[in-house]
Order: sequence, then structure tokens, then C-alpha cells
Amino acid sequence: MTMKDFPLSKVFHWIEPGPVVLVSTAHKGRANLMTMSWHMMLDFTPPLIACSIGAWDHSLAALRATKECVIAIPTVDLAGKVVDIGNCSGKNMDKFAAFGLTPLPAQKVQAPLVAECLANLECRVVDAGLARRYNVFVVEVVKAWVDPRRKERRTFHANGDGTFVVDGKTLDLKKRMVKWQSML
Amino acid sequence: MTMKDFPLSKVFHWIEPGPVVLVSTAHKGRANLMTMSWHMMLDFTPPLIACSIGAWDHSLAALRATKECVIAIPTVDLAGKVVDIGNCSGKNMDKFAAFGLTPLPAQKVQAPLVAECLANLECRVVDAGLARRYNVFVVEVVKAWVDPRRKERRTFHANGDGTFVVDGKTLDLKKRMVKWQSML
Repeated sequence: MTMKDFPLSKVFHWIEPGPVVLVSTAHKGRANLMTMSWHMMLDFTPPLIACSIGAWDHSLAALRATKECVIAIPTVDLAGKVVDIGNCSGKNMDKFAAFGLTPLPAQKVQAPLVAECLANLECRVVDAGLARRYNVFVVEVVKAWVDPRRKERRTFHANGDGTFVVDGKTLDLKKRMVKWQSML
Repeated sequence: MTMKDFPLSKVFHWIEPGPVVLVSTAHKGRANLMTMSWHMMLDFTPPLIACSIGAWDHSLAALRATKECVIAIPTVDLAGKVVDIGNCSGKNMDKFAAFGLTPLPAQKVQAPLVAECLANLECRVVDAGLARRYNVFVVEVVKAWVDPRRKERRTFHANGDGTFVVDGKTLDLKKRMVKWQSML
């Protein structure tokens, strides 16, 4: 549960594989969490991420008002909680307390980090112009953290049908990345 | 290698987990392929997908000219080829021939399906307005195919550092999806 600095230039390593993530917000003294699996990288540095957050999400009001959030990367041991977080509303409950998760102060945003997650990305909304048409907010990651001592590091991915695929084995194909060596 | 109809309403099941995909295009009688791992679902029905395709991609000209592509979902047995496809340019080569992949006629677009892939999504560009700022094209899936007889069905995900994580075990958490039962 000790978060260490993580370089912004490598933030895309957390998002590009497409894991289910949590989004934390804070507004009027209340923190909230939502689950998100529609997101993508838009740029490397500064790291830009497109996030699908719509009118059906209670977090939308906090995101609009504060223009800040934290994207937290949960691992498979948290899968049940993460799914439950995505199946209830923060309107009348404190999800951190309800699910036994620990909010930690962030450095650059008001939204809290999630202590139990593998990585946390502090984000500011830099473009809300796609929200009306696509429910998409573009956020810039302004500070990133990782828990280097966490043993379980496998993330999981939503199939969209209530099943989730867990990270399996890793293929090392670095030698074949002849065009993109500078990115490795 | 026999592609069967796949319902458009379930196309998000292929994209939401965040696999590495191939994008096929056809322009002036030449087909081409690129590898893509920055993409996301934007809507369920009709299925809308945001795709990061930039000036560094030779496929951009074909996509701009024809406003059509096929998004093909490769499985882990194709990982080496898929990475190699992302590390060379179609400017002076026929990637289908070079990598021993079979172009199949699509039904609604000129771009070919990739016979060796698990699923193929025929797409039309519906919004090129985000291309200048974010290198993003919004495509609508107009026809989808799956190979039901394919044995290897594990997809793989780019970590962005030349390593790739292969689908591992599947968690069935359908019973916890109390809010989204209608989507399952």
C-alpha cells in the first residue's frame, strides 16, 4: 500500500492493454468511485486518455464540477469489488467505506488515490467537448503512482457479458519491435 | 476459416477487453494491414469504435479516401505476425502476401476480411473530425463476422513495451451484474 512515483512517459503501459479501471472523484467533500472499461490512450506525453463517462454515471457531476479524477488500476483479487462498484450508485452511499477501500490523498488533484490498487493516475479534464456526442472526456495524467511491493499484479478485462478475462502469460516480442524501439 | 454472421449488438464484446487488432484497408486495388492497440468502444448499437490512426500510418490515406476499413481480431497464435505487421510499412509491400494472410471479400466494404482472424468487423468512418487533434477516427461497425470453428480463441493485449499479455482464465461474474442484466 505504498505508492511510489511512476514516470508519466510510461503511463500508456497501464492503459494500452485495456484493463478494467476504477475512476475516483471528490466533490463537496464526498469521494466516489466508478468502474470503467471503455477508455483508450490518445497520446504518450503528456499522457492523454479518453474516458467514457455518461449521464448514467453519478460520477459525471463531480467530474464536470471539479475537472479532476484519479484512474486506478485494480488487480484480479479486487475483481468482485470492482464489479460491485460498477453495479451500484454513489448517489446515496460512500463506496470507499462500503467496499473497504482506502482513499489516499493525491498530490495534484482533490480526488483520492485508491490504496489497494496497483497503480493510480491523477488526471485533469483537458477536453469535455466530446461529452455531448460520445460521453467521452479527455483527461491528462498529471501525476502517476505505482505500488511496487504489491504481489498480485494481474489486471483483468471486461468481455462485456459479465465475464472477465484475467491476464495470462506474457509474450516478450521486444526484438520484433524494430520500428518502435524508442518507445520501449 | 469460415466466417459466420455475428450480431452487431454484441460487437462490443470483441473490443471492450482491449485486444490488439488488425485494421485492413483497400485503396486503388491494393489491400493493406496495420496493427492497432489504441481503440475503444463509444456506443453499443449501432456499434461505434474510436480508432487511433495517425499520419505515421500508411493506412491513413486509404482510410481517408475510402472511409472504410475492417477491424480484425487476431488470436495469440498470430502474435508474431501481428507485431511484425506493426513494424513495417505497406507503402512498398503487400502485407497479406508477405505474412501469409488471406484476404476475403467483405460484404459491405471494399476492405478485405482477414481469414485467419477470429472475428472481423466491417466498418465505415462516421466521424473524421477528431483526426486532426487526436488522430482518432470514429467508425461504425456495419457487419460483423466470427469464425466459430477456430480452436485458438485467446486474444492478446499490448503492454506498450514490446511485451504482450495473453488472455488467461475467465471469471464469470454475471450474477453480480445486477445493474446491467439487460446488456448480458
